[in-house]
Amino acid sequence: MIESFFEPKSVAVIGASHTHGKLGRIVFENFIHGGYRGRVYPINPNPVPIDGIGVYQSVKKLPEKADLAVIATPAKTAPGLLKECADAGIKSVIIISSGFSETGKAGRELEDECRKVMEKNRMQVMGPNCLGVYDSSSRVDTLFLSRSRLGRPKEGGIAFVSQSGAVGATMLDWLADQDIGISKFVSYGNGIGINESDLLEYLADDTKTKVIVSYIEGLKSDGKRFMEAARKAAKKKPVIVLKGGKTSEGTFAVASHTGSIAGSAKVYSAAFKQCGLIEAGDWTELFDMARAFASQPLPAGDKLLIVTDGGGFGVMAADEADRRGIKLKEPSERMAGVMKAAMPSYVSLHNPIDLTGDVTTERYELAMEEGMKEYDGIVVIAIFQVPLLDKNVASSIAAIANKHRKPVLCCSAGGEFTKNIVRELEDRGVPVYLTPERAVRVFDAMLKYSKSRQ
Amino acid sequence: MIESFFEPKSVAVIGASHTHGKLGRIVFENFIHGGYRGRVYPINPNPVPIDGIGVYQSVKKLPEKADLAVIATPAKTAPGLLKECADAGIKSVIIISSGFSETGKAGRELEDECRKVMEKNRMQVMGPNCLGVYDSSSRVDTLFLSRSRLGRPKEGGIAFVSQSGAVGATMLDWLADQDIGISKFVSYGNGIGINESDLLEYLADDTKTKVIVSYIEGLKSDGKRFMEAARKAAKKKPVIVLKGGKTSEGTFAVASHTGSIAGSAKVYSAAFKQCGLIEAGDWTELFDMARAFASQPLPAGDKLLIVTDGGGFGVMAADEADRRGIKLKEPSERMAGVMKAAMPSYVSLHNPIDLTGDVTTERYELAMEEGMKEYDGIVVIAIFQVPLLDKNVASSIAAIANKHRKPVLCCSAGGEFTKNIVRELEDRGVPVYLTPERAVRVFDAMLKYSKSRQ
Repeated sequence: MIESFFEPKSVAVIGASHTHGKLGRIVFENFIHGGYRGRVYPINPNPVPIDGIGVYQSVKKLPEKADLAVIATPAKTAPGLLKECADAGIKSVIIISSGFSETGKAGRELEDECRKVMEKNRMQVMGPNCLGVYDSSSRVDTLFLSRSRLGRPKEGGIAFVSQSGAVGATMLDWLADQDIGISKFVSYGNGIGINESDLLEYLADDTKTKVIVSYIEGLKSDGKRFMEAARKAAKKKPVIVLKGGKTSEGTFAVASHTGSIAGSAKVYSAAFKQCGLIEAGDWTELFDMARAFASQPLPAGDKLLIVTDGGGFGVMAADEADRRGIKLKEPSERMAGVMKAAMPSYVSLHNPIDLTGDVTTERYELAMEEGMKEYDGIVVIAIFQVPLLDKNVASSIAAIANKHRKPVLCCSAGGEFTKNIVRELEDRGVPVYLTPERAVRVFDAMLKYSKSRQ
Repeated sequence: MIESFFEPKSVAVIGASHTHGKLGRIVFENFIHGGYRGRVYPINPNPVPIDGIGVYQSVKKLPEKADLAVIATPAKTAPGLLKECADAGIKSVIIISSGFSETGKAGRELEDECRKVMEKNRMQVMGPNCLGVYDSSSRVDTLFLSRSRLGRPKEGGIAFVSQSGAVGATMLDWLADQDIGISKFVSYGNGIGINESDLLEYLADDTKTKVIVSYIEGLKSDGKRFMEAARKAAKKKPVIVLKGGKTSEGTFAVASHTGSIAGSAKVYSAAFKQCGLIEAGDWTELFDMARAFASQPLPAGDKLLIVTDGGGFGVMAADEADRRGIKLKEPSERMAGVMKAAMPSYVSLHNPIDLTGDVTTERYELAMEEGMKEYDGIVVIAIFQVPLLDKNVASSIAAIANKHRKPVLCCSAGGEFTKNIVRELEDRGVPVYLTPERAVRVFDAMLKYSKSRQ
């Protein structure tokens, strides 16, 4: 029944405020102005309408049993309000308020009271101390950060689960800015009810989600259950994890941040690997990988071709391939022959192929088409600024990428002229990375996941 | 006399073409439309004026001895034209043409011919097969890539030397887009004359250059001479190196790219370290470091304070500090006392300090001011999207950073709202990074350089 968090037909916003800028007011406005198509009920002891919409003084007075309630009031009121939800028959509640176990003893007691109400009434609770949910399709949006400061990403295939609300929100804003789409975002905070394992199970079967990414500081669920949920999910789709608190300093910082003790890095890494999860080194790598998994097919083998028009970038890519243990197989005689016949003598027909600075779109097309015949994937590192590449280069690269069921990852850097080409490539489903190393690392991650599924 | 490449009073562009889009035409236009204030002479066998400017059929017919000549004609004409420069008394020449040793035997012979002319006439030659020079102040600009495709960075303190023209040009365009300033850019290509050691020596004494960054695939100069030049330069200012061709795959790619065999990674790394050079892992790290060295003072010791309003990001920073061997010392009792008195109880007064999501600009100010009293540098990881941070946050952080002679590095990510704050911080001289890990790595590099100088 976890879908009531993502696709509720009706929502009660407890603490919807008459004052602009307050948490509950922002959440309420997200629902009424953000494209949500269900029914929204503001709940406030003061029955003066908000934005012309009638206010209910309690969830118990609602004309229907709401599918979801959001509690955005001070921590001390949460246990009582949760009880009111139970009494009104509301089974799914997000408590976004903070001031619970993360703040000390008094908060821990309030959290325990909420847990009791939840368990006694068999409710599903997300939070407390969380941002809750943003669903790019249903437009459920409990993020209490104003849209003027924090953008919301468009629809896409990446589900993003973050234990930390602050980390999650920042990345969400960045994703929106980068025009990277997501299916769902969840920040589950202290996780007294819904935790990472519940979400993994749900998202593994969510048709809108092609890849799951997760920022975890410490597990809220039982380790065994997590591993089971993770293993099952990873069999269905890629699950990429970023673990905060890997080292001793980091572990200490986690302890003071969420009040939970993060396990040792090695234990987590080993467990992740055993379950088939992919571990990212930092948050940019998390989304580097996610973008490829969401848009590109998996490589069937490890034969990687690197094509570039800038030799130096080919060198960097080759270096990274070597560090990752990927051997760069030379093009076959047949392929080298075909290319040699069609290209100037100074084009370097090794792997990386260096098409050099007078490259044309046709040269890229030929190298990619030939490469597709004998390689499992291609990293294209294009300096688009060179004079002879025409405007068709993005559509050509994308067309070849989309025609074959093999991954293509691009790499490019530059100013407005180049960024326009990059945008077109990404709009056509080809992910583009700033450095050759990042593109090769992503191929490596896809390769490892592909192998782990075989 | 290497300054005639950067500050010539007169330039002859050999191969300035009547045809738009040709190499020589683009270079010629760079000089006449790009802000260069010296005298420019187009040289072409066809004496029809270009853009209304009188053409000379040979450098020998010029009314003065030009300080610099740029040869932008096909390789086979280069030795003869170089000889003409010698006859005309021109001592400094950039040969941007390609088609020399990088293409095989015939090219190697042409290159040898050029070398002979150069040596016999004691000329300084940059290139061939290079982009040459871009000087942001004098506006010497021999880059044959159109400004509509490739931006030019503003003035700044970073000198950037790239063996590869393609790599250099791409980064230059990216630097312009990121609004990162440079003093000089040099691509010396096959390096038959001017090489990395000459440039290190010159840039070490260049008052406009605060930090030197260099992309090297293999040395063009003698190893001993390079180490001597590097050691001397590194004593005067930070020198950051990115080495292409570190691993076996990469070395192979270099061999086919520039025709030189790159030495083993370990040999280079050891030599770099011995000379006090800083080695970057990839090109984004190269400029991450350069931005800080160009704008921030060096840390006097290793006491790093991390201040954030997003606990999770503090965790990532602490993890990276631990991986780099930086111990995060706790705030003193005094400092903790001062902060405790002024802040809510849930603010986490460890290191990282977590000012939490209801942070105000004042809270950041207090934490930084107190931190400056007992730490050697501060990494500020700010989620600017939170509701209570006002518009003064950027100027406040920058003011504190600029008041004390200690480095401040920021970290932030997000959309338009956040990017405006980031821009203000950078305009005020505080470098901002996308991830906590990158900011901490930069602090570590500054620390290591600072120690190597003591």
